[in-house]
Amino acid sequence: MRVVYLNGSFLPEEEALISPFDRGFLFADAVYEVTSVIEGRLIDFDGHWERLQRSLGMLKMGVPMDRDTLLDMHRQLVSRNGIDEGLIYLQVTRGAADRDFAFPPEGTPQTVFAMTQAKGLIDNPVAKKGMKIVTVDDLRWDLCDVKTVQLLYPSLAKMAAKGRGADDAWLVRDGLVTEGTSNNTYIVTDDGEIVTRDLSHAILHGITRKAVLACAERLGYRLVERAFTPEEAEGAREAFISSAGTFVLPVVSINGHTLGNGAPGPVAEALRAEYIRVARETAI
Amino acid sequence: MRVVYLNGSFLPEEEALISPFDRGFLFADAVYEVTSVIEGRLIDFDGHWERLQRSLGMLKMGVPMDRDTLLDMHRQLVSRNGIDEGLIYLQVTRGAADRDFAFPPEGTPQTVFAMTQAKGLIDNPVAKKGMKIVTVDDLRWDLCDVKTVQLLYPSLAKMAAKGRGADDAWLVRDGLVTEGTSNNTYIVTDDGEIVTRDLSHAILHGITRKAVLACAERLGYRLVERAFTPEEAEGAREAFISSAGTFVLPVVSINGHTLGNGAPGPVAEALRAEYIRVARETAI
Repeated sequence: MRVVYLNGSFLPEEEALISPFDRGFLFADAVYEVTSVIEGRLIDFDGHWERLQRSLGMLKMGVPMDRDTLLDMHRQLVSRNGIDEGLIYLQVTRGAADRDFAFPPEGTPQTVFAMTQAKGLIDNPVAKKGMKIVTVDDLRWDLCDVKTVQLLYPSLAKMAAKGRGADDAWLVRDGLVTEGTSNNTYIVTDDGEIVTRDLSHAILHGITRKAVLACAERLGYRLVERAFTPEEAEGAREAFISSAGTFVLPVVSINGHTLGNGAPGPVAEALRAEYIRVARETAI
Repeated sequence: MRVVYLNGSFLPEEEALISPFDRGFLFADAVYEVTSVIEGRLIDFDGHWERLQRSLGMLKMGVPMDRDTLLDMHRQLVSRNGIDEGLIYLQVTRGAADRDFAFPPEGTPQTVFAMTQAKGLIDNPVAKKGMKIVTVDDLRWDLCDVKTVQLLYPSLAKMAAKGRGADDAWLVRDGLVTEGTSNNTYIVTDDGEIVTRDLSHAILHGITRKAVLACAERLGYRLVERAFTPEEAEGAREAFISSAGTFVLPVVSINGHTLGNGAPGPVAEALRAEYIRVARETAI
């Protein structure tokens, strides 16, 4: 039975219960992070910790615990659930209060929930097969760099992609790809350049994106951070995504257009291998 | 002690608990309605019931109970809490499941939560004083006609308004007012015409808006449904808002510009009185 963390306690998941007055439930007034585990250790914990603080700060929410307490909690979840590979999901809300658009009084205890998902990350079959992508209009709010739980649209987009026989959707705003439903997106142009959307409010500032760009630099790839169109992606030599939970995964078709020879491309494969090598070295 | 409704049971609010795996908490995958109560009876119950079904349908969520069961549940909440005037809040989610952007399996039980807020609605002091409004960029998602719990931005906008000494914010997208943080918005032009934003994905299709427009017609006001700018609002003869919880409330200043003589305007007062008269007659 899975043990989860809720407001200072470790509990069997069935016993972890929150109030329906929680602002995470009533107002989506909550932020989250997902940290990956390999070999029982946390990848890029400090990157997630920093982004968590940034998201909380942008919403004028308090930071509910310090770095070392959060790290200890994550490690306890790993060990109590015997996680070798998988994810740790963390959510922080503004707490429970009678429903009001105005924030609750200062001192209202925040809700902190965390749980594990055991999941093979390194031997992901999609890494060998590649993903089929379709593009969908990006109808999300304008602050996609704040990692809130307002995830209804990404969920709808994911389902729309599945309904069209694809694995995931890339979102398009003003004629340009922003990102995937829960990942950053990359193409490789005909002259071998890696292109990924530049940082702004339009996309999540992926912790894995940052690590992947460092890998690309180390491996000597040319790299440009700029927006690209769906048409450019459809005609790209190869494409891929990155996220904490997927590392790097190749894309083999976009809107029915096969990329390259339809097999995972060499840049995606090299970056995935390098990312995993570094993650193994640096996980804590 | 307040009694709330959760998944078929009436419980003291402290005993009403949900799973943090609820998709309403993890993904804001939930819709809601707020129905007002006067003299212990429900205003426009069927309007809210119809919009609930519409919101659920747009998100491909099931309708968890039929109209009469929902009505009975609302009435029980009213009587168990002795509500003479106030609100009933209803939220329906896609249910609890392990976290995945893809929808949970068909048959996953939805979560249905409802609760009351006792609150004077007719003798609202703001009706005599009027509201101060400031405008704020509308950064919400593009499907504001679906009444989801993705309310973080309206909450932030409300707090921004309070921070600027105002009572509420009107949201502005592409140079045009969409709506308030939780209400529809109206101005009265110099030649006495009522102007309110036309229906689209940009605004909530207010149940109270519909009733107020019917009141306006009955009272013989000229009415235009079109978008207006913040500048037009600042120079309007009067302005007001409508929502289930506020009925009609006058606006006396916008971005520091005093409207008319700074007192609630006659159109807002007449519409508020007519709305309350009709609500008394038709509440069930």
